[in-house]
Amino acid sequence: MSPVFQLTCDLIRRRSVTPNDAGCLPLIDGRLAKLGFHVEMLRYGEVDNLWATHGEHRSPGQGPLLVFLGHTDVVPSGPEDKWQSPPFEPVVREGRLYGRGAADMKGSVAAMVVALERFVTAHPDHPGRVGLLLTSDEEGPTNLDGVRRVAEHFRQAGEHIDWCVVGEPSAKEKLGDLIRVGRRGSLSGTLTVRGIQGHVAYPEKALNPIHAFAPALAALAAERWDEGNADFPPTSFQVSNLNAGTGANNVIPGSLTALINFRYSTASTAAQLRERTEAILARHGLDYALDWNLSGESFLTPAGGHLREVVVSVCRDLCGLEPEQSTGGGTSDGRFIAPLGAEVVELGPVNATIHKVDECVDVAELERLPDLYQAVCERMLLG
Amino acid sequence: MSPVFQLTCDLIRRRSVTPNDAGCLPLIDGRLAKLGFHVEMLRYGEVDNLWATHGEHRSPGQGPLLVFLGHTDVVPSGPEDKWQSPPFEPVVREGRLYGRGAADMKGSVAAMVVALERFVTAHPDHPGRVGLLLTSDEEGPTNLDGVRRVAEHFRQAGEHIDWCVVGEPSAKEKLGDLIRVGRRGSLSGTLTVRGIQGHVAYPEKALNPIHAFAPALAALAAERWDEGNADFPPTSFQVSNLNAGTGANNVIPGSLTALINFRYSTASTAAQLRERTEAILARHGLDYALDWNLSGESFLTPAGGHLREVVVSVCRDLCGLEPEQSTGGGTSDGRFIAPLGAEVVELGPVNATIHKVDECVDVAELERLPDLYQAVCERMLLG
Repeated sequence: MSPVFQLTCDLIRRRSVTPNDAGCLPLIDGRLAKLGFHVEMLRYGEVDNLWATHGEHRSPGQGPLLVFLGHTDVVPSGPEDKWQSPPFEPVVREGRLYGRGAADMKGSVAAMVVALERFVTAHPDHPGRVGLLLTSDEEGPTNLDGVRRVAEHFRQAGEHIDWCVVGEPSAKEKLGDLIRVGRRGSLSGTLTVRGIQGHVAYPEKALNPIHAFAPALAALAAERWDEGNADFPPTSFQVSNLNAGTGANNVIPGSLTALINFRYSTASTAAQLRERTEAILARHGLDYALDWNLSGESFLTPAGGHLREVVVSVCRDLCGLEPEQSTGGGTSDGRFIAPLGAEVVELGPVNATIHKVDECVDVAELERLPDLYQAVCERMLLG
Repeated sequence: MSPVFQLTCDLIRRRSVTPNDAGCLPLIDGRLAKLGFHVEMLRYGEVDNLWATHGEHRSPGQGPLLVFLGHTDVVPSGPEDKWQSPPFEPVVREGRLYGRGAADMKGSVAAMVVALERFVTAHPDHPGRVGLLLTSDEEGPTNLDGVRRVAEHFRQAGEHIDWCVVGEPSAKEKLGDLIRVGRRGSLSGTLTVRGIQGHVAYPEKALNPIHAFAPALAALAAERWDEGNADFPPTSFQVSNLNAGTGANNVIPGSLTALINFRYSTASTAAQLRERTEAILARHGLDYALDWNLSGESFLTPAGGHLREVVVSVCRDLCGLEPEQSTGGGTSDGRFIAPLGAEVVELGPVNATIHKVDECVDVAELERLPDLYQAVCERMLLG
């Protein structure tokens, strides 16, 4: 078994559902320290973050800094019996490695570790610095104590990141067919619609919040928020959770709760989306409360940046593909690093199965991923 | 202490939470047998049912049969410390007798027993027959082994019931102010709408069942199922529970579950409501499954029926009230007796506290209830 395959399996076996790292980071800590990396464990609240650098680390800010960014936490598996094999037991079937986190993003994390090991072993005195930043709080609802907090720490410590490669699974069908050069913003809300609880036999004495919300929900789901622009697809709106009811079938519930989420382009601002949502709710006469949470503003690494060009050339040379340069998909922890002044590009495996049952990664592509990351190191720092 | 008060207290002391009779029926069995009633204990599964008749019982079907119908089981008390006094210890405060089942319906059961005792003592050779049918499985979720099973037994045995007085607490504010002459039907369904789970950032790869269902939900909530009729309010539709989502705000759920319930008038049939519901779902192109459960068909004792007129006259003469003749409220065990060809009317105490903490019945009204039931016996069989 190759080092990247082995490490990916070792990580999948650890049930690191956000924010529990479940021992993933210590695995990596030891390996990098042995190769001369300067490793810090940054713990904020319940969250472990690993920050490892190699190179001119005694004089930070003096040479260019290339950082690989990833997360060890995964989303919950959902009902395990829906999976063909247990989600936390890595299994290969028909050339694919199955397990929660295989694609998002324990495969990338393993590939980054292996690439950095190879790079510093081959070039122990490389110019500049390489770094690895890993968190166990990327998939959770708030990400308060992950890269958001680390970025604050960097800002205060005067740590400047020049380039950042994020390992999020970016590819559509084949490794190298798509990289991300920016991200949409993410705006969430917790909506509570209030009704009046009662017995289903006496609906005239109750107010069913499910019925009250239905036309507003239909309007929200049908709304066209914007058309996007040259760099971004149109803003999307999703209700991710909707819950109402006591469990009993003879009780009209007293309230309904919905979690909503916008992924928004630079064609809209968070403030506009909030206003338009509340206008739709108000138009339907609902008695509601809505708590907003802006979890990530949009960001963009413009065309012409050095990192963006190198990552494109690596895809072209090692994968034989001209990668699409996209800002689609979700948000990523890149949103916290970009405001530090870094160019941010995302390069990772195929994302078709992430957050789903039977999440998997192609084994042959996983084996090639360290080559890509190593080539980025070499072209950025040596080339 | 009067006989009806004494017997009500004796019944409240027995913790007969569904389906446990806790010795209520044997108390009554002995009293009626002593007065020449023919008593059968019909046990189905875990459930005791008592069937007692007096009159021409050696030639069933030869004379008219007037049956009183009740239940000895009660709903759980809930947290006992929320009660002002322990729920299974009868206590009088300010003219009201407190205890679980005081109103629903141990007071009525005691009044029926006392009324029948008085009636057969005063008229040992009355024409026709009087009967008492009691179950300990009325308040549970399924009622499979209570009056539903007894009615099947009657059908097979050729037992014909002409008139049935149900002791359910029917009154709003005063004994005699409201009687029930029918009940709405209750039709439930468990609806599962299937989508495709995915990440909120990639809505094009997922199918959000909440969004897919929204227009259908709005249509269902807005539908006018019927206008009701002279005896029934319009059919009502309620979504009592709606659940979708994994809890995470970045996952588009794979399915949605809704519990729906119709309380329907005789202006619609269960078959029509099922068809119309499924047509609305199909029109919106949903991938769904819907499991129906018909828990009670509607029934009506039309105006002009002999029993209905007699019960009205009894309320008028003994309570000085012109009773509202209603088909409102939930369902009752009368739904199993009506299809046997019986006229069914419900007459009982005030229902304001049923199923609540501090359930109680007015003592003066409890004392008058045997007079009402006895008058019904006399006017139906002697009059």
